[in-house]
Amino acid sequence: MAGKFITLEGGEGVGKSTNLEHLRNLLERQGIDFIETREPGGTPLAEELRELLLAERAEPVSSDTELLLMFAARAQHLEQTIRPALARGQWVLCDRFTDATFAYQGGGRGLDWQRIEILENLVQGELRPDLTLLLDVPVDVGMARARGRGALDRFEQEQHSFFDKVRAAYLRRAEAEPERFRVIDAGQSLVRVQQQITEVMSEFFHRGC
Amino acid sequence: MAGKFITLEGGEGVGKSTNLEHLRNLLERQGIDFIETREPGGTPLAEELRELLLAERAEPVSSDTELLLMFAARAQHLEQTIRPALARGQWVLCDRFTDATFAYQGGGRGLDWQRIEILENLVQGELRPDLTLLLDVPVDVGMARARGRGALDRFEQEQHSFFDKVRAAYLRRAEAEPERFRVIDAGQSLVRVQQQITEVMSEFFHRGC
Repeated sequence: MAGKFITLEGGEGVGKSTNLEHLRNLLERQGIDFIETREPGGTPLAEELRELLLAERAEPVSSDTELLLMFAARAQHLEQTIRPALARGQWVLCDRFTDATFAYQGGGRGLDWQRIEILENLVQGELRPDLTLLLDVPVDVGMARARGRGALDRFEQEQHSFFDKVRAAYLRRAEAEPERFRVIDAGQSLVRVQQQITEVMSEFFHRGC
Repeated sequence: MAGKFITLEGGEGVGKSTNLEHLRNLLERQGIDFIETREPGGTPLAEELRELLLAERAEPVSSDTELLLMFAARAQHLEQTIRPALARGQWVLCDRFTDATFAYQGGGRGLDWQRIEILENLVQGELRPDLTLLLDVPVDVGMARARGRGALDRFEQEQHSFFDKVRAAYLRRAEAEPERFRVIDAGQSLVRVQQQITEVMSEFFHRGC
């Protein structure tokens, strides 16, 4: 039986790292064989592309270039890591995936939604995550948390309006695919956030049985 | 008036460097203001992507990844270098462009022609070269010349059958767009090859007047 493909999404400062650990614990407790990976990245070449994408540089990066690099890294990640794991029956827990491209390049940078869909279909074919957890917080809260962490990368240095658009795009994706998405209110206390995630996962484990 | 966009194409060992110099001399003698550039490359970021693409690596590079990296570099090159030059009225002389993607990734690697066309339209919109010179030699001749040059990159190490397919794809492109392409028989003596190029360019200069 093919494994399940679970993605965790959200803007800056929503608590992805902490909640990824919680998700990992839930899968382990359930005795599920899984791999954990991230985007952009997940293979040595894709990680090199991640470095290129996040680096600060004097040369302005065209929005098409950024979009194509994201999908180049994704094509490599899919072929080398994600598809082989799913085919072996392993579950895949992935820190960000194509919804992040819609949110950051589509929402944040204002790239035509349809251009992203063309690439999504080109690179993924029919493959979509089986479940996507979207950690959602008001932008002010997320930015304050991200700033508290110290050094910021090229994306984290964007302005408030950028992250407003990122958040709106994430919520638009979630609304369009309610079957796949579960929106987690990540502005609450960590205990409450993890309770929500536990409930979602427990429903998902039962659904698959 | 917008500048003209001229590309030089051909497989391994067809004599691109030598004939690029000849082309450069012809443009200079005509008093044309032009820039010279190359693909993949042409901007610092696109040159970094060129290094990534040509490097030998243990990880197999998926054919989609290679294709998307080519177009990521191209998007950057178009936005930072080619389109601004043409808009200023400068001519652009480019060592390889999208025809090379059809030849190497389409012909050589066997990637679906239509997938490349989707990306060509996505990244270039309506933009196509005004003139493309295709240096054509039998594969045996080209490979012998390339080998004589010493160290080979990831593409140059491919087999004879790969270059057969590259050459066939180039010729297929030339056949489909006879208005844009001029096929130069580059198996002849250098003097004869340069005569052919001089004739093509002289016709092109007159056409533009």
